[in-house]
Amino acid sequence: MAGFNVRSVLVTGANRGIGLGLVKQFLGKSNPPEWVFASCRDPKGERAQELKTLASRHPNLAIIALATDPASIKAAAARVEEHLKSSGLNLLINNAGIARLNTLESETAEDMSLVYATNVTGPLLVSQAFLPLLKKAAQGSPQPGLSCSKAAIVNMSSEGGSITNLFAWQLGQVVSYRCSKAALNMLTKCQSLGYGGDGILSIAVHPGWVQTDMGTGRLSPLGVQGILNVLPTLSKKDNGAFVNWEGKVLPW
Amino acid sequence: MAGFNVRSVLVTGANRGIGLGLVKQFLGKSNPPEWVFASCRDPKGERAQELKTLASRHPNLAIIALATDPASIKAAAARVEEHLKSSGLNLLINNAGIARLNTLESETAEDMSLVYATNVTGPLLVSQAFLPLLKKAAQGSPQPGLSCSKAAIVNMSSEGGSITNLFAWQLGQVVSYRCSKAALNMLTKCQSLGYGGDGILSIAVHPGWVQTDMGTGRLSPLGVQGILNVLPTLSKKDNGAFVNWEGKVLPW
Ligand SMILES: NC(=O)c1ccc[n+]([C@@H]2O[C@H](COP(=O)([O-])OP(=O)(O)OC[C@H]3O[C@@H](n4cnc5c(N)ncnc54)[C@H](OP(=O)(O)O)[C@@H]3O)[C@@H](O)[C@H]2O)c1
Ligand SMILES: NC(=O)c1ccc[n+]([C@@H]2O[C@H](COP(=O)([O-])OP(=O)(O)OC[C@H]3O[C@@H](n4cnc5c(N)ncnc54)[C@H](OP(=O)(O)O)[C@@H]3O)[C@@H](O)[C@H]2O)c1
Repeated sequence: MAGFNVRSVLVTGANRGIGLGLVKQFLGKSNPPEWVFASCRDPKGERAQELKTLASRHPNLAIIALATDPASIKAAAARVEEHLKSSGLNLLINNAGIARLNTLESETAEDMSLVYATNVTGPLLVSQAFLPLLKKAAQGSPQPGLSCSKAAIVNMSSEGGSITNLFAWQLGQVVSYRCSKAALNMLTKCQSLGYGGDGILSIAVHPGWVQTDMGTGRLSPLGVQGILNVLPTLSKKDNGAFVNWEGKVLPW
Repeated sequence: MAGFNVRSVLVTGANRGIGLGLVKQFLGKSNPPEWVFASCRDPKGERAQELKTLASRHPNLAIIALATDPASIKAAAARVEEHLKSSGLNLLINNAGIARLNTLESETAEDMSLVYATNVTGPLLVSQAFLPLLKKAAQGSPQPGLSCSKAAIVNMSSEGGSITNLFAWQLGQVVSYRCSKAALNMLTKCQSLGYGGDGILSIAVHPGWVQTDMGTGRLSPLGVQGILNVLPTLSKKDNGAFVNWEGKVLPW
């Protein structure tokens, strides 16, 4: 982990849950990034309190407003660029996501639309907006190949989005969520083909089952730390893959 | 094919392209269904002209209004039930779909939303609305196991939605389309687990590359006929699978 040298990272949905955990992990590294950008919908509100407390202790933490609408995403990229000055962004972690506890029978058009907009369209638009900064990081890096410390898009997926496994169907059908994560995996694969030539690694990560507002968290002893153990191990051969918090490749 | 005895079938997006081709194939069978329901957005308009001409010659063809909004879907199920009287619906073919020729860079929130609503939420809601009629067909059937002549949901997918293959990426990135078809494959898998116990087969079919407004059609010599050759061969072991017009299983 100490060898994992990320100069700048942006984590979306960073005010709670896995996103907040990732921010804490990055800040706590023995070689912390020069910039940790923690984005959330409402940096001024109650829900960002823990981030604000962290920021008061860590001058390398910047809290960035970012929701799913295109205008706010573009504004966020502009703000991050101001902080970075002439350097690029190494690592974009599209973590923000939602689930709706519906079954096949109770699933609705509204929830299908909302979950997709958040879990798939959000990561697509955020990646588009931050692409120039990711490219800049790749171009400025002396490292060959692809890696998370050079330039990477990490999409927070879920084993529940594995069409092959249909993990934990008996525990929750969550059809809109599963469909969104399968689509996010597809987006990741598209990004790996589209951006690999620019020196950017794209990867879909199942974070394990972590205790958050969304997750019941009885299955992943490592929790968020597992994710940070896996990211430094990823290279060109993993571009476009779907891995879990132990680095194991999951089937689509 | 003559042994393929479907008493009733509904095809969505049936006013042109593959949907219209399927309707013609069913009507032209030596043992045609008692009811072929051809749904389209505007049965009274210009775009339904060919269906109307067909209906004037085939009393077993009923044209049903069906768009993607929940109210119109429920109304369509009620109209189909009136025609069927006490019997169920054997075969639901969720064929309606759209594509937008965007790249990773040009993809928009609007197109992501529209393509998903049509290609994924549409089939979900249509399947929910027709579930009672599909269950009735399964219950009324003396056949064991699962089959398309007993009760089935066929979701028209695309090899472009195979995350593994990312078919024809060089020809068209169509990210919103690919994401939607990967999600539709997930929906199909969910339906196979959710409805298999009710005697309903669920399957995702890649129809081949057929010459339509959407498809350039240089790759599938069989065209729509291939789909009708495959449907009768499907059984319980195929429940939740992704097959092409030759019956070959495709990877997710
Ligand atoms: N926890 C698990 O066990 C588990 C398992 C598999 C995958 N995952 C994935 O990991 C990611 C994080 O999950 P989590 O458990 O940490 O969830 P969580 O505790 O519910 O936190 C979700 C985060 O996403 C943000 N968010 C939600 N909708 C948003 C929107 N429309 N715009 C901007 N931000 C939005 C939330 O912000 P607000 O506070 O403003 O709502 C919050 O920061 C998700 O993608 C999830 O699918 C989690
Ligand atoms: N053609 C190919 O080579 C190919 C290859 C792989 C997969 N597919 C799949 O096969 C299916 C049929 O494709 P096609 O080539 O026949 O396409 P097409 O010629 O463009 O026809 C699409 C049909 O879907 C209907 N439709 C579109 N949006 C709708 C909506 N919101 N509500 C209701 N109906 C709607 C259209 O009705 P209107 O006339 O009212 O627009 C039309 O009847 C699609 O799911 C497609 O993804 C096709």
